[in-house]
Amino acid sequence: MIIVLKPNSTADMIDHVLKRIEELGLQPHLSRGVSRTIIGVIGDEGKLQAEPLEAINGVEQVVPILKAYKLASREFQPDDSVFDVKGIKIGGGHLGMIAGPCAIEGEDLLYEVAARVREAGANILRGGAFKPRTSPYSFQGMGEQGLEILRRVGDRLGMPVVTEVMDPRQVDLVSKYADMFQIGARNMQNFDLLKEVGKFRIPVLIKRGMSATVKDLLMSAEYVLAQGNREVILCERGIRTFEDSTRNTLDLSIVPNVKGLSHLPIIIDPSHATGRPDLIPAMSRASVAAGADGVHVEVHSCPEKALSDGPQALVPDQYARLMDELRRLAEVLGKSIDVCQGEPVSCAPC
Amino acid sequence: MIIVLKPNSTADMIDHVLKRIEELGLQPHLSRGVSRTIIGVIGDEGKLQAEPLEAINGVEQVVPILKAYKLASREFQPDDSVFDVKGIKIGGGHLGMIAGPCAIEGEDLLYEVAARVREAGANILRGGAFKPRTSPYSFQGMGEQGLEILRRVGDRLGMPVVTEVMDPRQVDLVSKYADMFQIGARNMQNFDLLKEVGKFRIPVLIKRGMSATVKDLLMSAEYVLAQGNREVILCERGIRTFEDSTRNTLDLSIVPNVKGLSHLPIIIDPSHATGRPDLIPAMSRASVAAGADGVHVEVHSCPEKALSDGPQALVPDQYARLMDELRRLAEVLGKSIDVCQGEPVSCAPC
Amino acid sequence: MIIVLKPNSTADMIDHVLKRIEELGLQPHLSRGVSRTIIGVIGDEGKLQAEPLEAINGVEQVVPILKAYKLASREFQPDDSVFDVKGIKIGGGHLGMIAGPCAIEGEDLLYEVAARVREAGANILRGGAFKPRTSPYSFQGMGEQGLEILRRVGDRLGMPVVTEVMDPRQVDLVSKYADMFQIGARNMQNFDLLKEVGKFRIPVLIKRGMSATVKDLLMSAEYVLAQGNREVILCERGIRTFEDSTRNTLDLSIVPNVKGLSHLPIIIDPSHATGRPDLIPAMSRASVAAGADGVHVEVHSCPEKALSDGPQALVPDQYARLMDELRRLAEVLGKSIDVCQGEPVSCAPC
Amino acid sequence: MIIVLKPNSTADMIDHVLKRIEELGLQPHLSRGVSRTIIGVIGDEGKLQAEPLEAINGVEQVVPILKAYKLASREFQPDDSVFDVKGIKIGGGHLGMIAGPCAIEGEDLLYEVAARVREAGANILRGGAFKPRTSPYSFQGMGEQGLEILRRVGDRLGMPVVTEVMDPRQVDLVSKYADMFQIGARNMQNFDLLKEVGKFRIPVLIKRGMSATVKDLLMSAEYVLAQGNREVILCERGIRTFEDSTRNTLDLSIVPNVKGLSHLPIIIDPSHATGRPDLIPAMSRASVAAGADGVHVEVHSCPEKALSDGPQALVPDQYARLMDELRRLAEVLGKSIDVCQGEPVSCAPC
Repeated sequence: MIIVLKPNSTADMIDHVLKRIEELGLQPHLSRGVSRTIIGVIGDEGKLQAEPLEAINGVEQVVPILKAYKLASREFQPDDSVFDVKGIKIGGGHLGMIAGPCAIEGEDLLYEVAARVREAGANILRGGAFKPRTSPYSFQGMGEQGLEILRRVGDRLGMPVVTEVMDPRQVDLVSKYADMFQIGARNMQNFDLLKEVGKFRIPVLIKRGMSATVKDLLMSAEYVLAQGNREVILCERGIRTFEDSTRNTLDLSIVPNVKGLSHLPIIIDPSHATGRPDLIPAMSRASVAAGADGVHVEVHSCPEKALSDGPQALVPDQYARLMDELRRLAEVLGKSIDVCQGEPVSCAPC
Repeated sequence: MIIVLKPNSTADMIDHVLKRIEELGLQPHLSRGVSRTIIGVIGDEGKLQAEPLEAINGVEQVVPILKAYKLASREFQPDDSVFDVKGIKIGGGHLGMIAGPCAIEGEDLLYEVAARVREAGANILRGGAFKPRTSPYSFQGMGEQGLEILRRVGDRLGMPVVTEVMDPRQVDLVSKYADMFQIGARNMQNFDLLKEVGKFRIPVLIKRGMSATVKDLLMSAEYVLAQGNREVILCERGIRTFEDSTRNTLDLSIVPNVKGLSHLPIIIDPSHATGRPDLIPAMSRASVAAGADGVHVEVHSCPEKALSDGPQALVPDQYARLMDELRRLAEVLGKSIDVCQGEPVSCAPC
Repeated sequence: MIIVLKPNSTADMIDHVLKRIEELGLQPHLSRGVSRTIIGVIGDEGKLQAEPLEAINGVEQVVPILKAYKLASREFQPDDSVFDVKGIKIGGGHLGMIAGPCAIEGEDLLYEVAARVREAGANILRGGAFKPRTSPYSFQGMGEQGLEILRRVGDRLGMPVVTEVMDPRQVDLVSKYADMFQIGARNMQNFDLLKEVGKFRIPVLIKRGMSATVKDLLMSAEYVLAQGNREVILCERGIRTFEDSTRNTLDLSIVPNVKGLSHLPIIIDPSHATGRPDLIPAMSRASVAAGADGVHVEVHSCPEKALSDGPQALVPDQYARLMDELRRLAEVLGKSIDVCQGEPVSCAPC
Repeated sequence: MIIVLKPNSTADMIDHVLKRIEELGLQPHLSRGVSRTIIGVIGDEGKLQAEPLEAINGVEQVVPILKAYKLASREFQPDDSVFDVKGIKIGGGHLGMIAGPCAIEGEDLLYEVAARVREAGANILRGGAFKPRTSPYSFQGMGEQGLEILRRVGDRLGMPVVTEVMDPRQVDLVSKYADMFQIGARNMQNFDLLKEVGKFRIPVLIKRGMSATVKDLLMSAEYVLAQGNREVILCERGIRTFEDSTRNTLDLSIVPNVKGLSHLPIIIDPSHATGRPDLIPAMSRASVAAGADGVHVEVHSCPEKALSDGPQALVPDQYARLMDELRRLAEVLGKSIDVCQGEPVSCAPC
């Protein structure tokens, strides 16, 4: 950590800072320049980061050197993490292809979509039973009944399932049905919820908040990891910017950026990032080419009747064409896509 | 609601849209132009807003006309809401002056700060017992013990108290100690938490999320109001932008903006918005001049030893000088600041 | 300047960095920590800031300590600058009240608006003769004829005039008519234009670009100052953020922020910042309360027929009511508003 | 265009709006709903877009239906534009691979870099002679001497050259040396400059401004097209957001987004978008996979001694490895990369 003093800081102020650092058992190194005095601090930076040194009289700026996350860092674990979601590997060259409707609306509909995306090559089924909706008057999800449907459809088709958990009180319930928890963007900094899923041994997909920096996202992963659950998968789903022709702005450079900072897998959700079906295929291809560990796409057999986020869903035929493209790209790039076990039953489009 | 069709939409596509609107019991009005066909829809727009019409083939754009919030709207209630927080009025010309440390760290310290801010003219005491920290390794708050301290100090000084609630499981507990719930910025779209505080009859201070639009904030208020709790106070605390010389960017134009849209009071938190004590006095004055219903300021007697957010706290003397300025401004602008009851004990600065 | 080395940087890499610093005639101070090595550099930081040290193998981060602007800094000149715009002072407690239509549309119309705003207390007249419009098909301004009208109306009413210059080729022409140049937000980093106005001895009003940081704005001021023109007035007119209920987001905390960093005056333009006449009065009051050195408001006698930016203009009566409020606030805050000389002729509203 | 009236608008207000529309020779269609009255307008929308209808008393919102750009739109020209930059095609499946140093620093250095990138497969050489630098104290470019060097090196290697023009007064000069003009991000809305390059018949590469929407970018293209120069190539180079771990945020979804709206080619500049050499390869691959018409990369043989933007440059070896990957991807995706004519001379790295 480096402490930069104000140009007019007095000898007394400097002494006060030096004393505080020594009180913490750390070693200050003073460098006096013509226009500024700076103090480098050697030792356990964690101790210092917890101290409000900027509030000391005479201090202009405090520059942290070490990262605030540890377990999530590439330094903690140099090799890529590879997680097994009930037989489907994600990370280290294995792509997780997550697909399904935004919300679970009924067993027949979910089965139909699931069978179609599985046939196209998706290897994890998604579907929301608890839905975070901006309006209290919108459909809020089927709740436990939805979880039961999701589990049954996943089992019938041999697909692992992922579903969102929104409330610490639901975590235990959801753990009985899901192969992977999803933490939604709006809950990325719901720290009590992160602690709760951290107590389980079920992989957690954490979606980046709309105004979260890459560092914030890694700190949220750290919350889960610090509880003992080491299986965290990151997910970019767009950030809020001034650009209004897309629902959000997909920050795709997060992929190589996170790969440098962390060993955790990162997948991309172009459905929420763009909100526009016409942009999803191109951004899915770009995601795989950028090195993402998977793609998360919303698929619905009748988007115009969907109870949630219909306007951004692909129909199964579009998803099948997209998966053909992604498989070709994956091959060129040396990536593999695990296949679900068992024989799926195909069914007609709506 | 207005539905704009694509330039190349066929007669069949248009018929399909018209049929869907009629199925919903609404009346479509078709206007054919040279380059575009548009459909105006008359009737209960709420029904339509829930439908994913943009997903229909041939539809280019759907333009909602009515607001998605009702109970929070100025149309629902033309007059300003005025809420009474245990004797202190907020709204309709009454300013809530909320002050106190970021976190409750101990009874003596809290009492000292509280006595000083009360003496300066603050009329509501704040202090966090449950702290949302970006790092799992930072101080997470004193929990129930902190709530007990806050209650005792509030009672000794005759000050109403406000404190953050982060987890739906804590709401019942916090309700036993607090005169006002605070929903933090990171939980503004924690919908289960909003529903939970909506079940109580205790005022709720909702802080705007870092990437929440004004409309999003009003929708979060609507969640609480729809549960039956009609006492919601909005709070602007800065949004995330590219500007990095302040912690966040204070969007002060939210004050007249919200006054046009809603009857709910809105107060400003310049401490979190700017993160810099040197900017807090000017932005507090600006808040009162803009018509805000109160100002929320963090005050600590020894910022350099604070366990949370020390670098942005004012010391009690600075707060006292600020309150002198704000009182003068309030007078010119015809606003009043309620005074706490009883005789405070003053105490020396740290 | 502080250079932070990567955790795995070798002794050779470190030697290479040290050698480069010494080649530049500067003195490196090495501190080796457990997890990082850092190098503090003492001497003329300007030299180092020009060097791409981050490109050296083994360097993780370069932290500048000194500001990149000099002439604009508070350290260069501790006292507030006060500039005289043809008899009207701006800065150091004197408020510049700039008002007028967005574009000059004709002499009668300009005279009418000017007479009304002057009567209300405005002390500088604005009007655009060259208009930066996002569409090539929109009205582009009256050009030199507009400048002539502006000058004549200013002279008839004894008001100094400010007008935008967009093209380095126009600066000489505009200098013959204007008492103050305006550099628009879209040209804030049009460096050739900044250099050109820097050659004159006419005050320059620089509007902050929509995505410019406070530091960027001060660097643009530095361009003008470095050419020898020491009269620069800064102007905040809103930045681009995700919030879409206002045209831009007014970053009002720039006022105390700039006051700490620079001696230059700063005024606020709530018309462009909010784009909404209903928000302008509140944000003008807030600007004065925050310590701004003036307020810039667009006024038009018939906004619905204005050739540019009509929807955001106040009508003269609204401006007169606003100025009454601002005068009262200015008095309480110890600020003064210079008055134009001569007797204005009032005229009826349209 | 659709005009939405306020809930409390009177019959007189509505009549006034209808009269204004008819005065413009257009036909209003009135629809009265329970809570809102709306007016659809049929006819030449261009006329209406120029009118400040929002300023009319009683009008709440004006919703344009048609796009404000015409010549740039896909509707104006359904097929992809393909431009020939001195023998190198860009658009319609042909990728422009632009590479070179940020600034021209001398002939030997430029030749070395150019020869290396040409060998690797780049087909257009870039280099700045006029540099827009945020600091007036930074290197401002070699000016005309730089243009001469660029032209000579391009001719020796058979490479077309692109270089930035910053000032309307330089356009004529630059036109004598360049095969393509570059308009930098900071000048994207320097409308006089756009008009000036619009008078030539040399292709123009327009870089998106840091806070420009996709629509703003297309409007700037329209400025050039409206002058008669029909060869405009768009370039995404990152937008400003709150994320601070990259220099800007690459908005890659602009590629399919623009492909839907416009026939103009769009290329990606990952160097300026990310500012980090470690992210450039992944984002270049993603750009090609997303369907971009080219990639623009800064390459320098000794980044640590570059006079401008060294920290974001690739070295020639890195660029060569990247081009190998991009060629493989282009092949899978059915894209072609034109090759420069003549025999390049290779040379050793620095």
